[in-house]
Amino acid sequence: MELKDIFPVWEKMTPEQQKRLKRSAVKRTVKKGKILHRGGTDCIGLLLMQQGQLRAYIMSEEGRQITVYRLFDLDICLFSASCMMSSIQFEVFIEAEKDTDLWVIPAEIYKEIMETSAPLANYTNEIMATRFSEVMWLIEQIMWKSFDKRLAEFLLEERNLEGADTLKMTHEMIGNHLGNPREVVTRMLRYFQSEGMVKLSRGTIEITDPDKLESVCGA
Amino acid sequence: MELKDIFPVWEKMTPEQQKRLKRSAVKRTVKKGKILHRGGTDCIGLLLMQQGQLRAYIMSEEGRQITVYRLFDLDICLFSASCMMSSIQFEVFIEAEKDTDLWVIPAEIYKEIMETSAPLANYTNEIMATRFSEVMWLIEQIMWKSFDKRLAEFLLEERNLEGADTLKMTHEMIGNHLGNPREVVTRMLRYFQSEGMVKLSRGTIEITDPDKLESVCGA
Repeated sequence: MELKDIFPVWEKMTPEQQKRLKRSAVKRTVKKGKILHRGGTDCIGLLLMQQGQLRAYIMSEEGRQITVYRLFDLDICLFSASCMMSSIQFEVFIEAEKDTDLWVIPAEIYKEIMETSAPLANYTNEIMATRFSEVMWLIEQIMWKSFDKRLAEFLLEERNLEGADTLKMTHEMIGNHLGNPREVVTRMLRYFQSEGMVKLSRGTIEITDPDKLESVCGA
Repeated sequence: MELKDIFPVWEKMTPEQQKRLKRSAVKRTVKKGKILHRGGTDCIGLLLMQQGQLRAYIMSEEGRQITVYRLFDLDICLFSASCMMSSIQFEVFIEAEKDTDLWVIPAEIYKEIMETSAPLANYTNEIMATRFSEVMWLIEQIMWKSFDKRLAEFLLEERNLEGADTLKMTHEMIGNHLGNPREVVTRMLRYFQSEGMVKLSRGTIEITDPDKLESVCGA
């Protein structure tokens, strides 16, 4: 796939702008587990995903984490180019959750084009609004939802993403997604196991009763 | 003050765009306590603040609230025009915390201009990034900060905004800002009182030792 096949407003760019994007964008393949971006001082550029899975998370001073959103095929990661906008004043980390093919577009080129291109600026607005909506959803989850529901939802989402009932995940990894200490995750998973919803073994969680897990989410 | 004096990228608009904005914008004065916008179905337009104070908050099904950000003189409220962008998928409420003078710009006019004006679209991006940063800050607060620190910080911020040591606020109002039940606020305020930092009486909180309160934030 070429850049033009996945760049969202390609046909609304001028030939000159298209040429600049094409010349500056670099295709990369990143391995699962690779951390692509570490907070505010990094500015590797925009990431345009061809295929794969990334997660954006924040980290406390003590190293606790919480996933703020995930990115999938054809998504664009703006905040890895945070130097592009002075108003972006927060530190986000980006990690590859699966092997990922992506295009890296240098922040200064994107910014330069965006400054004169209303279509690109408006598209960027829509991306930001999408992330904003995800982050607002997260606040609602944290504030109003009990942990059993959040965990049940997370397990079902993972099952969906992996297309498998057995998830290769440690309790610590789940804690890093949901922003909770490992012990809290372990305690709730054991409760789920005692209710027959999951089966735990070293480094894996098997979802044995997805319907019952679903009913926890809705309860 | 005229619209052109406070509209941020006025001089980068074409005369035609300026004319449209001028014709469509309406100046309003809203009283303290007025709820200007209620969630996703409302779309009253962009609010450009001349002077005053608004707060944006979200609400749980049970009516619990948390303030997500506040708006002050010359700020722009985008999310009261959420119909402008399809990617804005969350429900925010906007309330006047003080008597406020503002301009209301119809969403469809703003959107129309933004579609062809790169300066306005980029400016809108910066506003969104600013709000995004505030919301990310909030997540960090909720996730990693103990409630005593959040409450101490809130009281000092209020003192600063009001320019007075005595705050006219009920414990419930504070709970609605911070997303905590009233009882939790009351318990912590009583602890602050026992430590000589505040003095509580019916409907008011007097800050008697701001330095000590400050030390709670930093602890």
